[in-house]
Amino acid sequence: MAAKFYSERNLKFILYQVHDVESLTQYTYFEAHNQKMFDMVLKAAGKLGKDLLFPIFEEMDRNQPELVNGEVRVHPSVRKIMKEYGEGGWITARVPFELDGEQLPHLVADACEYIFQCANYSANAYPGLTTGAANLIETFGSKELYDTFTPKMYKGQWQGTMALTEPEAGSSLSDITTMAEPTGEGYYRIKGQKIFISAGDHDGVDNVVHLMLAKIEGAPAGVKGISLFVVPKKRPDENGGLIPNDVVTSGVYHKMGYRGCPIAQLSMGDKNDCHGWLVGEPHNGLKYMFLMMNSARIEVGLGAASMATAAYYAALAYSKTRRQGRKVSQKDPSLPPVPIIEHADVKRMLLFQRAVIEGALSLLMQCSKYLDLQHVVGNEEKDKYNLLLEILTPIAKSYPSEMGVQAISQGLQCLGGSGYCDDYPLEQYFRDARIHPIHEGTTGIQAMDLLGRKVIMQNGQAFELLLSEIQAAVAAASDFLELQNHAQQLDEALTSLQEVTGHLIAIAGTQGPEYFLADATLYLELFGIVVVAWQWLLQGNAIQKALSTNAKKKDLNFYHGKITALRYFYAYELPKTQGLTTRLMHTDGLTVEMRTELFND
Amino acid sequence: MAAKFYSERNLKFILYQVHDVESLTQYTYFEAHNQKMFDMVLKAAGKLGKDLLFPIFEEMDRNQPELVNGEVRVHPSVRKIMKEYGEGGWITARVPFELDGEQLPHLVADACEYIFQCANYSANAYPGLTTGAANLIETFGSKELYDTFTPKMYKGQWQGTMALTEPEAGSSLSDITTMAEPTGEGYYRIKGQKIFISAGDHDGVDNVVHLMLAKIEGAPAGVKGISLFVVPKKRPDENGGLIPNDVVTSGVYHKMGYRGCPIAQLSMGDKNDCHGWLVGEPHNGLKYMFLMMNSARIEVGLGAASMATAAYYAALAYSKTRRQGRKVSQKDPSLPPVPIIEHADVKRMLLFQRAVIEGALSLLMQCSKYLDLQHVVGNEEKDKYNLLLEILTPIAKSYPSEMGVQAISQGLQCLGGSGYCDDYPLEQYFRDARIHPIHEGTTGIQAMDLLGRKVIMQNGQAFELLLSEIQAAVAAASDFLELQNHAQQLDEALTSLQEVTGHLIAIAGTQGPEYFLADATLYLELFGIVVVAWQWLLQGNAIQKALSTNAKKKDLNFYHGKITALRYFYAYELPKTQGLTTRLMHTDGLTVEMRTELFND
Repeated sequence: MAAKFYSERNLKFILYQVHDVESLTQYTYFEAHNQKMFDMVLKAAGKLGKDLLFPIFEEMDRNQPELVNGEVRVHPSVRKIMKEYGEGGWITARVPFELDGEQLPHLVADACEYIFQCANYSANAYPGLTTGAANLIETFGSKELYDTFTPKMYKGQWQGTMALTEPEAGSSLSDITTMAEPTGEGYYRIKGQKIFISAGDHDGVDNVVHLMLAKIEGAPAGVKGISLFVVPKKRPDENGGLIPNDVVTSGVYHKMGYRGCPIAQLSMGDKNDCHGWLVGEPHNGLKYMFLMMNSARIEVGLGAASMATAAYYAALAYSKTRRQGRKVSQKDPSLPPVPIIEHADVKRMLLFQRAVIEGALSLLMQCSKYLDLQHVVGNEEKDKYNLLLEILTPIAKSYPSEMGVQAISQGLQCLGGSGYCDDYPLEQYFRDARIHPIHEGTTGIQAMDLLGRKVIMQNGQAFELLLSEIQAAVAAASDFLELQNHAQQLDEALTSLQEVTGHLIAIAGTQGPEYFLADATLYLELFGIVVVAWQWLLQGNAIQKALSTNAKKKDLNFYHGKITALRYFYAYELPKTQGLTTRLMHTDGLTVEMRTELFND
Repeated sequence: MAAKFYSERNLKFILYQVHDVESLTQYTYFEAHNQKMFDMVLKAAGKLGKDLLFPIFEEMDRNQPELVNGEVRVHPSVRKIMKEYGEGGWITARVPFELDGEQLPHLVADACEYIFQCANYSANAYPGLTTGAANLIETFGSKELYDTFTPKMYKGQWQGTMALTEPEAGSSLSDITTMAEPTGEGYYRIKGQKIFISAGDHDGVDNVVHLMLAKIEGAPAGVKGISLFVVPKKRPDENGGLIPNDVVTSGVYHKMGYRGCPIAQLSMGDKNDCHGWLVGEPHNGLKYMFLMMNSARIEVGLGAASMATAAYYAALAYSKTRRQGRKVSQKDPSLPPVPIIEHADVKRMLLFQRAVIEGALSLLMQCSKYLDLQHVVGNEEKDKYNLLLEILTPIAKSYPSEMGVQAISQGLQCLGGSGYCDDYPLEQYFRDARIHPIHEGTTGIQAMDLLGRKVIMQNGQAFELLLSEIQAAVAAASDFLELQNHAQQLDEALTSLQEVTGHLIAIAGTQGPEYFLADATLYLELFGIVVVAWQWLLQGNAIQKALSTNAKKKDLNFYHGKITALRYFYAYELPKTQGLTTRLMHTDGLTVEMRTELFND
């Protein structure tokens, strides 16, 4: 059965009509591309998703990875997936031509990633992590490191990972204890333990290359003493072969979902023979890693939006075909039951999903576009896009993650009891999606990053830049009669966000950081709603532009469906800012002052 | 390890101090009881939970029921559980003395049920369903039916079920097609299919007694043609033995959670030899079933609150012992990491759980008390409690169900990555709890029941009665300086709820039922928050009363912890009514008017 797992129509609308990806081709770096080529790339991604990834979505869940004789055994398709991604140029999609990459805009490459993740999030994690790890070596590593490790990663023969977390250091990376002892022979001797390492070991590749945080002996305490190393599972020997590098897989976690991809526990240097190669300068590891982590965070947001997308289309398909009950205005039991999509409450649940997902996707593509622009514009403008990305990253990570879980839950609810059973994929999406508010920095961590760092950075410059971007969308929307009401609603929400921000910053000054950050998670939630309302207004602008110029008759249903989803967001989601604002304007340190012993009994 | 799965202290506070269970003993029906006996009963329940149910909570999940040779094989402890419940008098806890029951108040019996469900929801489902099914026979069945079936059910030797749902009739029961053909020999011949039948078949009992909805040939269409039958898996033969009754288990569902209890698919009358015995009058089946369904719905709410309770104590234990990071005001990396409960955001997540759970539990015990009062007061007052129960049932079912999922999700979040792995129980609670917004009537169904039926019934009399109850609590709270602020907040929310209600009823008159009920689910959510705020105020009143009179020093931490949870509810949860009110006051038929074809693309 060719089940739909994403909407090509909607994706192209967001790429071409909302974020105008073609405008990027005016820059020299992207001049070799054009929309026709982007179409082909998207089509190829869709085909890979449909033919290779989606058919094994359930199978990979049902046969979760197991540790067998010291190696993690994964679904046999993983090797094929890595190979196809490698040969298809998907791992090198964003790599420059000069390094034999495809030099695609992030906007297009990330759209493909979205398609892959809609098809099968776990499957895409293997090449996705490899892409990120290779990018780190490419950006900060020496030529020798690059030549040794990236070619096989680009080809999908070797797996790449991010190895940060340790048993006693998850959210708090400053406490890592993995040590790197200099040997004076070009490499370091690594000793320590890592946990929760995605794709940290498996038999679908010939080697695993960990981008690992460790501390060089004698390094300063805390985050300023962290360095970044390449630590492979097997290291090259003098004869061009591979020998074991004393990296032992000591366990694989049994997870609620996201089961197609193993999360491993690693032990380095048990035999004192684990070699690691420094990436860049000593003690700069966290800075380098954050480059990868920021895109990894946006990618988690994209993954969350993807899963919710696929879940939505599964719920939609069910709602269109499942007949049950009659409309509340027609209670005659002799009438045939109607498809449940006829019930207002089912439409509400479906519209909620669309409002969340399509809004989040637009935000994620906005981030991709800023990333592209940052790459091609002059230095002054670079800062602008960099700051916009800094402030949007925690939102782009957490809004889709948190709301994706809720969207999928509503999708599951459309199916009733069937949604709870594994005959349908909704229960798997529900299990899979719950990882997103956790990995790559929990929602609480994102919230502190947003309020405690990004909003106040450079005297609030990132915040000001974002306000300008949103105000520009509001101004543009005011030209369309149909959008004036929404433009005003967003303008008011924006004013309210500014007031809350000012209020909290004042608290920082008078009451210190504990009180300032106590409700950061609510602030993040508030901020997220406003930002997604902005993205919906941008979509509204694009729709009105199309309707007033070149809209084809066959596109009208699409546009009118989107207009309803937009109206839904402004009618049902935006008002949630009211309660959040009330709370945030009355921050009173309630949680700060709650003593631990009061949790007894 | 003796992990805590509920708080006896809190349960007794709600029973004795908030809802004054001892006051029931002034009525003749309950005069044989006193608080000391209630204490003993609660203690016995705690022991059963701790010794028998809680230790196999995970095991029952990991070894889910399977269909083997036509019979469902369940965990071997199920037989023991049924036996201990039977022998311990738990199945007959609410049954009158004259029928050899314990004649306990619902308030106490339901509190025990809460303890059991905190320990192991799935395990309690077997005797719980049996209790409900036996109660139906006891209330509406003939003496012969009673004598034939209930003694073995009371003893836990036979399982009882509710068999309503069919492949084409879930939320819409009027469409059931299971047929009952009169034979003139005292029984009917049953033919049809049932799905999603909890504990519908298993090898932990000697027989299964289905309380089954079916239509007698020639019955009126719709719900008015539904009758209730006793349809056992095995029927008594002339020699006092049991012979197969042509009820075949055709499947068992694989569910995301709630795996300790099988959900079966049944086929009746494949060999045209399935006997069923009519309960009460023909065509009155749904009315009878609703008696059971109302308490089943409240019980689902109780189960949801229970799971969230156990999840909370697991999250609390982790948060107290897990060390990670430093307080935001102390960033010195040379300081030791603090237990994560020191972080404001973790305290916020824990307080959220308490606010939801302890509020919901108080509401559920309120319903139990109304049920008890309804039983013992004079006829006029009976109506009052009946109406209060009618209007509270959809809220008592859905608030804990919906918010329980969220509370558990926050509990899981406290554990970070560990919450997602099966080394800790949080992921199981998260999977288990998702059934609650579905079974015994989805949240959408509850919402239509509340707004479309209960709020407007008898000219709004149920609504008015509830308002009076809430206003009485507000008035009482106004006597305490510490609660005046909250009393005023609740009073305002109540006014707002009345405005919304009036507005929606006006829409019913002008625009008809589709527009009236379009946002019923939001109305239910709004109503739920107000009702739980009421229950928190009642708790506040009880605390202030204790603090101003007989509070012992050792209880002060308990009271102050509860006061903070109360403050949390009013500071963080109650403001959510603002956005809901905004939407409900602007109901515009957005979902009603959304055409199905606009969901294409």
